[in-house]
Amino acid sequence: ARGRRPNKRITKHRIDHFGFLEDGTFKQRYLVNNEHWDQKGGPILFYTGNEGDITWFCNNTGFMWDVAEDLGAMLVFAEHRYYGESLPFGQDSYSDTKHLNYLTSEQALADFSVLIRELKRKVLGAQESPVIAIGGSYGGMLSAWLRMKYPNVVVGALAASAPIWQFPDMVPCGDFYKIVTQDFARSGLNCDSNIRRSWKAIDNITATDDGLQWLSGEFSLCSPLKKTDLDDFKAWLQETWVNLAMVDYPYEANFLQPLPRWPIQVVCKHLNFDPSSVSDYQLLGGISEAARVYYNYTGNCPCLNTSSTATGNLGFIGWYYQACTEMVMPLCTDGVQDMFEPQDWNFQAFSDECNSLFGVRPRADWAATVYGGLDIASHSNIIFSNGGLDPWSSGGVTRNISDSVVAIVIPDGAHHLDLRYNNEYDPHTVLSARIQEVEYFKLWITQARKLQIPG
Amino acid sequence: ARGRRPNKRITKHRIDHFGFLEDGTFKQRYLVNNEHWDQKGGPILFYTGNEGDITWFCNNTGFMWDVAEDLGAMLVFAEHRYYGESLPFGQDSYSDTKHLNYLTSEQALADFSVLIRELKRKVLGAQESPVIAIGGSYGGMLSAWLRMKYPNVVVGALAASAPIWQFPDMVPCGDFYKIVTQDFARSGLNCDSNIRRSWKAIDNITATDDGLQWLSGEFSLCSPLKKTDLDDFKAWLQETWVNLAMVDYPYEANFLQPLPRWPIQVVCKHLNFDPSSVSDYQLLGGISEAARVYYNYTGNCPCLNTSSTATGNLGFIGWYYQACTEMVMPLCTDGVQDMFEPQDWNFQAFSDECNSLFGVRPRADWAATVYGGLDIASHSNIIFSNGGLDPWSSGGVTRNISDSVVAIVIPDGAHHLDLRYNNEYDPHTVLSARIQEVEYFKLWITQARKLQIPG
Repeated sequence: ARGRRPNKRITKHRIDHFGFLEDGTFKQRYLVNNEHWDQKGGPILFYTGNEGDITWFCNNTGFMWDVAEDLGAMLVFAEHRYYGESLPFGQDSYSDTKHLNYLTSEQALADFSVLIRELKRKVLGAQESPVIAIGGSYGGMLSAWLRMKYPNVVVGALAASAPIWQFPDMVPCGDFYKIVTQDFARSGLNCDSNIRRSWKAIDNITATDDGLQWLSGEFSLCSPLKKTDLDDFKAWLQETWVNLAMVDYPYEANFLQPLPRWPIQVVCKHLNFDPSSVSDYQLLGGISEAARVYYNYTGNCPCLNTSSTATGNLGFIGWYYQACTEMVMPLCTDGVQDMFEPQDWNFQAFSDECNSLFGVRPRADWAATVYGGLDIASHSNIIFSNGGLDPWSSGGVTRNISDSVVAIVIPDGAHHLDLRYNNEYDPHTVLSARIQEVEYFKLWITQARKLQIPG
Repeated sequence: ARGRRPNKRITKHRIDHFGFLEDGTFKQRYLVNNEHWDQKGGPILFYTGNEGDITWFCNNTGFMWDVAEDLGAMLVFAEHRYYGESLPFGQDSYSDTKHLNYLTSEQALADFSVLIRELKRKVLGAQESPVIAIGGSYGGMLSAWLRMKYPNVVVGALAASAPIWQFPDMVPCGDFYKIVTQDFARSGLNCDSNIRRSWKAIDNITATDDGLQWLSGEFSLCSPLKKTDLDDFKAWLQETWVNLAMVDYPYEANFLQPLPRWPIQVVCKHLNFDPSSVSDYQLLGGISEAARVYYNYTGNCPCLNTSSTATGNLGFIGWYYQACTEMVMPLCTDGVQDMFEPQDWNFQAFSDECNSLFGVRPRADWAATVYGGLDIASHSNIIFSNGGLDPWSSGGVTRNISDSVVAIVIPDGAHHLDLRYNNEYDPHTVLSARIQEVEYFKLWITQARKLQIPG
């Protein structure tokens, strides 16, 4: 299935589903593949696109391609508004607060619902097709929420690595970085300890201009560090370790970056020395080798650029706006249970930053109101899958809520590993997760067909 | 309980829950009575206010007052934004399309959810209180939708006389007026036949200026009829018969107007002659007597005003705007199964009218997308009650959808009779409906308390 390509399609949506003053429309891109589709009402697997280019998500959601034939399913990958090519106001979409106003999860869910209803109305044979929402990460949140808010549109949802509880007052803000730390701790001797020590070493070394210059050279930074860049440099390193935790896959892969199999193990080979036996210079030398595993596995990268940590397929500004409005996800570190410098969650500082960047202030309590918070037991037909290695599992649903709102935990899985193509190096836990997921799909499809019997 | 009064309260809401550009707030009025409330987590009965002054709905929802003691319940009546005193932009709220933009059912549901969460957070003893949504008519639709969309906020809903299916392609558009006609047909000999004949009689008589003058006098109209007023005059009469069907209560009441018990029977006493034996003048004389039953039961009305048909407590302009946007409810007549002049449902004409009135166009398909249409089986804990006399039962849910989405039909009930105070003239069917409703409430409350047990 890997060589197969979806067809690109376009549909038109209202820019504002929830008000009637703005009556304009915009073009949403979606991708379709129906080579395995049973045109007599076969199911539709509908990927609820997240904060990036839908082609990239399509290529990284091999699971759907792998199961299409067995299910006789049509595959649809719908791009999220404001990302990729689905820009409501073209190049002006990000120009100011006014144009950004329609970038919300509620609008995106409405787009998906309208599109699904349109497909069922217009595609011959799809009228009675049960639709299953599938998504990972924020896209997984959208899948779960689509089933919660529009159960008339989708018969069930697979929400992979979806941190629907990573909102204020739902889970401890420190769990996320604790999991990152555990991933490093289990991947090599002294690995987390050396990273924990590195922050102070950076402070020590960069106290002098010579030290700053040395560090810039050691990391082959594209732009030499200035004193005022230190916080950004540390944040970049911290995000590097987080990203590695997210994509610690058991085989060579290219999601956020091209990486070797079990990349954290490779990283940790550069950080396995006894913390007490090395100088700050030696320690940071190891850190720089470790960072190169992430940034230069291909060997094609002439210098490291601290202004970005991952693929350009993600829409960082859009996601930042969403974090600054609805998607308020507290994270914090204490340096004890995690390997990072202590940092409280400071809502006010975050809110001020959002206000200066976008002219908006986040609404900390809204997600809990509109999406149910911890209280999701009255919903049905949702699978929450989470990887034990994935820091985002901190905000995920990792226990069964009811018979039909269920959790699947993949102990040695990173960020939505289950959504990827089958691979010879897959641990058996992810294989069995995928089997369970397909079994639920078949159950939902059977249920939906029974409901359609007249009378 | 009838002498008891609620306390008026005010809360602040965001004008726009679904966007971050408009960051203003407005004051929502709500009424509270907790004299019977069990402060150790007793339930909250929450009236989801509809298109009018909340005080008036409070006074016409005696059911809640009657059952408060038995349930140990707090009563809350929340006013719908843009009605009564809850005007987002004060006197400017209706000034133009821009100010009207936040008058939607989704915004109202978000108001209710935010308010309920606020009450549970702030009112001592209410943290664990199960909340039950109750509403009638459009307010009943809101109750059902609140449970569908925010099941984390309310444990169940009583949706009385809520025509959630009176939307395009869900029910036949002619059923509404068929029920009106049946009400008149069963309330007196020849009653519907004489009304059916009256339209042509009006045409005949008003063909001359003398006839116009005669008719104006016969009806004691406040403003004499002109030729160009004829359509409006007929529409006014038609709405009069509809309103009578809605409030055909078994006892003297004052909902849309002060009326005698079983008002249609009283109306029909003026219309019981053999249609073939009377002149147009005699026929219309009867019609005018019949109309007076509705407009002048108190005898205090010096003349009849064709520009209004009901209480000033309803917000007609607001409701018209809602009908012109989301609440697209097709109605039609054929003059055969109903007693009215044939009139197709003409969406385009309606849309054009909306555009000229408000600068908006209705979205015919949106309600079905966002509120599930006929496909509501995956929800839970909703009672749909409907009166057999009520024309709005045409768009109501009158059969059980599942074990917990259930229908109660009150054959001799008009528009949400079950929500009114107990009355000695109540038919036993409404008494047993109220008993069933309270039984469901108790079941939901028990369920909710069980879910709260830790572990």
